Amino acid sequence: MRLRNKPWADDYMNENSHIVIADPFSKKGKWATEFENDHPIHIEIGTGKGQFITGMSKKNPNTNFIGIERVKSVIVGAVKKVKEAEVANTRLLNEDADDLRELFEESEVEQIYLNFSDPWPKARHEKRRLTFKTFLEQYQSILKPDGTIVMKTDNRQLFEYSLVSFSQAGWTLEEVSLNLHDLEDPTNVMTEYEGKFSEQGHPIYRCVVRVP
Amino acid sequence: MRLRNKPWADDYMNENSHIVIADPFSKKGKWATEFENDHPIHIEIGTGKGQFITGMSKKNPNTNFIGIERVKSVIVGAVKKVKEAEVANTRLLNEDADDLRELFEESEVEQIYLNFSDPWPKARHEKRRLTFKTFLEQYQSILKPDGTIVMKTDNRQLFEYSLVSFSQAGWTLEEVSLNLHDLEDPTNVMTEYEGKFSEQGHPIYRCVVRVP
Repeated sequence: MRLRNKPWADDYMNENSHIVIADPFSKKGKWATEFENDHPIHIEIGTGKGQFITGMSKKNPNTNFIGIERVKSVIVGAVKKVKEAEVANTRLLNEDADDLRELFEESEVEQIYLNFSDPWPKARHEKRRLTFKTFLEQYQSILKPDGTIVMKTDNRQLFEYSLVSFSQAGWTLEEVSLNLHDLEDPTNVMTEYEGKFSEQGHPIYRCVVRVP
Repeated sequence: MRLRNKPWADDYMNENSHIVIADPFSKKGKWATEFENDHPIHIEIGTGKGQFITGMSKKNPNTNFIGIERVKSVIVGAVKKVKEAEVANTRLLNEDADDLRELFEESEVEQIYLNFSDPWPKARHEKRRLTFKTFLEQYQSILKPDGTIVMKTDNRQLFEYSLVSFSQAGWTLEEVSLNLHDLEDPTNVMTEYEGKFSEQGHPIYRCVVRVP
């Protein structure tokens, strides 16, 4: 992700506070009120420029989507896409997803998307991988019983690591694809990266795991 | 596997009854007596022409190996390899592995190898796949607590199916590789098929799963 300086970003986010939530910690346990309905809540960690979450929001009007992206100069792209799509079921959070339990109450979330997360390939950075056991504990806490994670990546090592990490923490594998685009799954919504990598002929890996 | 007629096969197996066990069902619960030691027992289901089991036997003299292969014209090749290798820690069974509980007592086995098993791709043949739940029940019964299965295949669909099947039956993933030969694992012993497929540039998948 390029970190270009975007001085207008703060203004733009303030203008669009119906999309980017200014104080998301105050919404913990109250997201149904924010959305004004009790539809299931799906969150994406690392929303990037928002192609995935906007596509999902349009396809699934009866689901509420929350995208979390810590890089300000990147999330403004997602704000633009959500605005243009005119979807009411999407919110964006410009936060570091350090501890999701500060943003969501126990069992408040139905599904979590991890799309093309940073693989942190060095062993000493294992703790930063979004499928490290401490993150899995957070996910388990905020997910409903029977809640799921959908993970996509083109990074083989991260995928191998994650399958083992999920399993050892007691998550159940519901589905796995080692070449997603071979499936031609009509429900799949591509991220920006996914389209690029897939065009280059790299396999895309996906798994769906259920909370312990 | 080519099923060439080998009329000399019966004679050859009789001559080598110290390698091919004539009545293996009588050995159930008594394999330690057959091997005259209490080394751990590893079994391979579908031993083919025996390249894998012979290689493993040579590399691991303190482990007992039992290879099961139902095709007579194929297993004679394995008998020849084991004989030439002059290994004392290997037995072969010319049996259909319909129910392993007839061959092994509860907890008699430490590790099971499933190498390049028939993928049975049609949905109606799911029950024949060696990672179908009824087979997993057999494996669970004959494996020691903490016992493991090591599975290798070049068939993506079978591997995807098996990862889900293992997980849903409560097995824990200890290790997974989505491109085994990229690892350059010095402990890996190749099967006949593995060498051929790998040379053709196909990825080889491997997983190690622990009994529930």
